[in-house]
Amino acid sequence: MNTAMEETQRIEQFLRKALVSERKHGYLIGVSGGLDSAVVLKLLVQAVGKENVLGLILPDRDTEKKSTTLARSLLEQEKVPYKVISMTPLLRHLGVYKDMPLFLLPTRGLKESIVRRFYNDYTKKLNKPVFFAQWEEPPTQLPYFYEGIAYYRIKHRVRMATLYYYAEKNDYLLVGCTNLSERLIGFYVKYGDDVCDVAPIAHLYKTEVRQLSEYLSVPEDIRNRPPSPDLIPGITDEYSLGINYETLDQILAGLEEGKTAEDLKQLFPADIVELVINQVKFTQKLEGKPYMLKRA
Amino acid sequence: MNTAMEETQRIEQFLRKALVSERKHGYLIGVSGGLDSAVVLKLLVQAVGKENVLGLILPDRDTEKKSTTLARSLLEQEKVPYKVISMTPLLRHLGVYKDMPLFLLPTRGLKESIVRRFYNDYTKKLNKPVFFAQWEEPPTQLPYFYEGIAYYRIKHRVRMATLYYYAEKNDYLLVGCTNLSERLIGFYVKYGDDVCDVAPIAHLYKTEVRQLSEYLSVPEDIRNRPPSPDLIPGITDEYSLGINYETLDQILAGLEEGKTAEDLKQLFPADIVELVINQVKFTQKLEGKPYMLKRA
Repeated sequence: MNTAMEETQRIEQFLRKALVSERKHGYLIGVSGGLDSAVVLKLLVQAVGKENVLGLILPDRDTEKKSTTLARSLLEQEKVPYKVISMTPLLRHLGVYKDMPLFLLPTRGLKESIVRRFYNDYTKKLNKPVFFAQWEEPPTQLPYFYEGIAYYRIKHRVRMATLYYYAEKNDYLLVGCTNLSERLIGFYVKYGDDVCDVAPIAHLYKTEVRQLSEYLSVPEDIRNRPPSPDLIPGITDEYSLGINYETLDQILAGLEEGKTAEDLKQLFPADIVELVINQVKFTQKLEGKPYMLKRA
Repeated sequence: MNTAMEETQRIEQFLRKALVSERKHGYLIGVSGGLDSAVVLKLLVQAVGKENVLGLILPDRDTEKKSTTLARSLLEQEKVPYKVISMTPLLRHLGVYKDMPLFLLPTRGLKESIVRRFYNDYTKKLNKPVFFAQWEEPPTQLPYFYEGIAYYRIKHRVRMATLYYYAEKNDYLLVGCTNLSERLIGFYVKYGDDVCDVAPIAHLYKTEVRQLSEYLSVPEDIRNRPPSPDLIPGITDEYSLGINYETLDQILAGLEEGKTAEDLKQLFPADIVELVINQVKFTQKLEGKPYMLKRA
């Protein structure tokens, strides 16, 4: 990557150019209280001015209170207008919470520990971290396996629908906050947090976004938090991946530079290298279009 | 197109094959009471059996009552299990109806006539049917222009989120009902009714789907209805396009066969030919990925 300063300037110019070429009036961003959306928010304000940015905070009952607090304070600090809209009523109406009744557990701590117990049990039975196994049929019946997948995915999809609603009614562009590490291994919800009009950090590994966050003075509270999709209590990024971002990014960057699996296995645990390489291949298929027939 | 019988058999085999190769347990379909979803439902039942199909009817307050009635009776006739889930509470929670307060008008007839008055006025000011002008900035201020666009699009996106929720929680594939005529001119909501896992009629023009509907004995009530997205009262497909499907499909098929604009202008009004050709080009851009930077 360039220096943080050079990369920041390059992205800001890119953001200004997209707005002009699409003839839109501003940017709509979902702010989660996490690192990626904080970096993108900072870049937007510097690129097009706070008056041309609108933020949405879209928590649901499982969202950590701290996430909403950090998102609010960042938007206020940047003087960007924003709205908080709870996704809970939507999800409740669709019966999502009934299908995975975490709400019956009285405390957040209890929810987290029960979820992690299921997660660890599945990881053993599936012989790999659940994140990597979610697209395969489990060898044995795993209670709440499919409900758990559907549970987290619908959250990002109703958020996408809400973000696009506010973008389109204001004739704004929707900015996306997915980074390259997530894109390469499919660590997103298809037709959820992967869709947007403009994706300013989609070419940066997570560890590179972290460098930008320091340069852009993203508050330490946000920078130091364990990265988390904040969709299911207790499941952070690195917990569900079973790999930390430093290792993941070095493997991904190694592949980008043309290193072979054998090269990488000299540097990292062989099973992790295999897992990442297979997942990168699978994700390309995941991005494919729906099955369609050709005309006869 | 093949004969209706041949094409039906080809699609059914395609549907069976997709299920096997994706190792899923069945198909989830949104049934609207319209022609396309009726044809796809019939194909699914013949291909994989009614016990491996689950239907969802997802009306909102603007949906024609007749649509829900026809969707219900078709699903019952085919003995396919189904659920009706109103989208109104989701849309109300997001403030969608407040932004375009059609509900203040007491009767459906009044809503339809007011909407059409706006639509006709816009068509004059934009110098083309509103459908074709929605991606450009209007030359003059048009009240409810952006709200109207956001109003109809969010409906299909919350439907998509709901359909995928039921598909994923049952480990089913989501089947899409978009046809080729719609796909070529972008007559769909991006990240709404254009996304699915399997799209069995995406290679057929609307008029070809109509032929299949006769062969598959789709009830006449459904076959004879004017095609409509059923998103805004009064706005059917052909009203918003300003073209009927017979003409549209002949222009699209002509382009597919390599006819030039000049050839087609001998057969159809020049302005309509131009409109369709420009829209087909624009739609290819619409399908593009978000704006992204390459790595430095």
